[in-house]
Amino acid sequence: MTHLIETFTSVLHQSALKPSRLIVAFSGGVDSRVLLELAAQYAQIHGIECCAVHVHHGLSDNADHWANQCQAWCEALSVSLAVERVSLDINSGKSVEKLARDARYQAFQQHIRQGDVLVTGQHIDDQLETFLLALKRGSGPKGLSSMAQVMPFGEAFIVRPMLSVTRAGIEEFARNMGLTWVEDESNQDLRFDRNFIRHQVSPTLTDRWPSFRESVSRSAQLCAEQELLLDELLESHFQQALGDSQSLSIEALFEHSGLLRARLIRMWLSHCKQSMPSQKQLKLLWDEVACAQADANPKLVLNDAEVRRFNHQLYLVRETKDLSDWQSHLSMGESLTLPDGLGKLHLNSALSDSVSNKRDVQNFSLSNTSEALRVIFNPEGLSAHPVGRGHSRKLKKLFQEYQVPSWLRRRTPILMDGDRVIAVLGLFVDKNYEGQDCEALWSK
Amino acid sequence: MTHLIETFTSVLHQSALKPSRLIVAFSGGVDSRVLLELAAQYAQIHGIECCAVHVHHGLSDNADHWANQCQAWCEALSVSLAVERVSLDINSGKSVEKLARDARYQAFQQHIRQGDVLVTGQHIDDQLETFLLALKRGSGPKGLSSMAQVMPFGEAFIVRPMLSVTRAGIEEFARNMGLTWVEDESNQDLRFDRNFIRHQVSPTLTDRWPSFRESVSRSAQLCAEQELLLDELLESHFQQALGDSQSLSIEALFEHSGLLRARLIRMWLSHCKQSMPSQKQLKLLWDEVACAQADANPKLVLNDAEVRRFNHQLYLVRETKDLSDWQSHLSMGESLTLPDGLGKLHLNSALSDSVSNKRDVQNFSLSNTSEALRVIFNPEGLSAHPVGRGHSRKLKKLFQEYQVPSWLRRRTPILMDGDRVIAVLGLFVDKNYEGQDCEALWSK
Repeated sequence: MTHLIETFTSVLHQSALKPSRLIVAFSGGVDSRVLLELAAQYAQIHGIECCAVHVHHGLSDNADHWANQCQAWCEALSVSLAVERVSLDINSGKSVEKLARDARYQAFQQHIRQGDVLVTGQHIDDQLETFLLALKRGSGPKGLSSMAQVMPFGEAFIVRPMLSVTRAGIEEFARNMGLTWVEDESNQDLRFDRNFIRHQVSPTLTDRWPSFRESVSRSAQLCAEQELLLDELLESHFQQALGDSQSLSIEALFEHSGLLRARLIRMWLSHCKQSMPSQKQLKLLWDEVACAQADANPKLVLNDAEVRRFNHQLYLVRETKDLSDWQSHLSMGESLTLPDGLGKLHLNSALSDSVSNKRDVQNFSLSNTSEALRVIFNPEGLSAHPVGRGHSRKLKKLFQEYQVPSWLRRRTPILMDGDRVIAVLGLFVDKNYEGQDCEALWSK
Repeated sequence: MTHLIETFTSVLHQSALKPSRLIVAFSGGVDSRVLLELAAQYAQIHGIECCAVHVHHGLSDNADHWANQCQAWCEALSVSLAVERVSLDINSGKSVEKLARDARYQAFQQHIRQGDVLVTGQHIDDQLETFLLALKRGSGPKGLSSMAQVMPFGEAFIVRPMLSVTRAGIEEFARNMGLTWVEDESNQDLRFDRNFIRHQVSPTLTDRWPSFRESVSRSAQLCAEQELLLDELLESHFQQALGDSQSLSIEALFEHSGLLRARLIRMWLSHCKQSMPSQKQLKLLWDEVACAQADANPKLVLNDAEVRRFNHQLYLVRETKDLSDWQSHLSMGESLTLPDGLGKLHLNSALSDSVSNKRDVQNFSLSNTSEALRVIFNPEGLSAHPVGRGHSRKLKKLFQEYQVPSWLRRRTPILMDGDRVIAVLGLFVDKNYEGQDCEALWSK
């Protein structure tokens, strides 16, 4: 009877988190109904705030009724409840289960502050289902790690205090406590893979081997530990291969075995917030981009981004805004925030304290300027005469000469004096503005 | 119809092995019956020898009949057959499945020479069963790696050419070829876990998800790759921690995280040919042996061996022979092979070419000897007066003074002149024999 609150408390304590608030992910089903009870009790004992969030998917005719029920249960426990309505794009081609899960966590995110702990009601039968679903997808150890008991969630944490408890144990607790809860009729729908496992697969396995859930839990845990260990061992290799502008050194990758290389490329894509490629894509990325002939200009499309090669480095290039028509004025001593995540541009007198070390800075003179300064990105029709060169050329040609990757040619700020080019940031200064009295810093 | 021989050939070629002989693990069941057909065909095409080994477990009343059938099928294909009778200790407490498997591989080992390839008939349904059995045991990525398509087997290799083929595909091939085979009635016995999975679990999963087998195969493969990658990354850390006499440096282990430490200890035990400890044993090994108080003499029993601590190192100490009564004569210029894997002892004139660098060598004089030299291991009742010490003491006390681990005190060779101690190898020379004209080298 009391053991669940002990389990709840022990998991929270083991996590070493000191939550300022507990946020309960509260569907109103039996698992989260019990969770609400435990969280409210824990919060009261520990003198912290407890809130609940109910996500109204609008998928069931009963959804409004469930929200009302949740409201009543929360009121009885003096827990404040937020009801978040989400709508799912069920024609997106993704599974409804995945859409609903993503929408839920997005909704929870709205209510989470730093220092909060979001508690969710998953238990060891859910863990078994999650493992078998990962297995059905042919996942490696990372996917087979299934759900963690404690994991970061933005600036807060998710904790699953009942992950070692069986579904039967939770239902028994609910009955013994005289709790009521809602039954989502979709939990019986065998078209959903999870429900199929729950009703048709798990019982066979757990009837034969009563500790099957615990074994799977242990396998998942060992897979998670292996992932942690690999990340620990790989971190230094990854940092060695990582270049400027989040590029990845092809030479560094060549030093390693195929397996290690593939892992480093995956770490790089994850570092760039890119979703994981398939094994086939990974092979293409190496064979046809990294190892393409020297004179090729290879690229591989990965979802909304492209992997390109330039100067023995791999770059992840995302779809970007057209900045052809963008322009902004800039005066001495000002900082300008560039569009589309391109960083900031600082313009200072060279005598003033520099905002950076001199490495990233370009010096020039503004004594010959005739008009107000502006910054643009469109090199079309412009020419310039870089200091140290024999004559003036089209910017288009100069970008090629300076080996600027093609995808950066319309994303490099051009400092203009009316219609005349003063400097292309990071590349050169025009002869007409040669000098030392000004400095520009482009911080990306 | 022909695709199985193509699969067989392709797996063999991909393995890059050039077998001098194919040895077929031949039970006479449908899988190995098809395998025999494929192996014989492959061997004929490639001009190599093909043999078969049938293991007669004696568990079934039909066992003699099966052996006769196997003989007939092999004769028809001009494949030589060896029938190996094994008997299982079914009261040993181990599962009959494991006993039978171990006995089979031991029997195969008798027939394998360097350069051979042992082919076995496991297919993708077997792989699924093996994965689920590992999951039932709560295995980590290593266990979940299941069966490898190619793996070392002593000085030869095991290849499983049909590991990507379904059971149904094999049975169809057998029917189409008009083959006959034996049916082991124990394959229907649901008391065996594997059969339970085969008949009660797999069909549910593969009916729902027709590519479930391939997914599990992919998960197993990814787990295996992860293990390889970890071993690659860990090798240098392991070599750094490995000390003389296969000991493991506790200080080196302290530098790492708990996960990495546990992995290095597992690598060490595997390096010492010790079977894997449980997580609990591993924790005890660290907490109660490695981290025991400085003045403690901790040990942990692992199967037939003990883990002990000495001089900030972990040692694996196996049960050893009692050498109290062992002795052997030794003359100048001779090499003596010591008993129980204790290495060799070389006795040379110091003027001759040394067999080693001087580091491991002890020098003394034999001009005072009165009797023939002999080597013993029993220090009982003996005394000696080490060069540089004030007086004579019992060897028992001297072993303590020299901090020889207790388990090595009756495993250190003592060079005797009749009943007088000349030297204890690796420790000291008696004052009476001080000199430089002889040298002894104990190479372990």
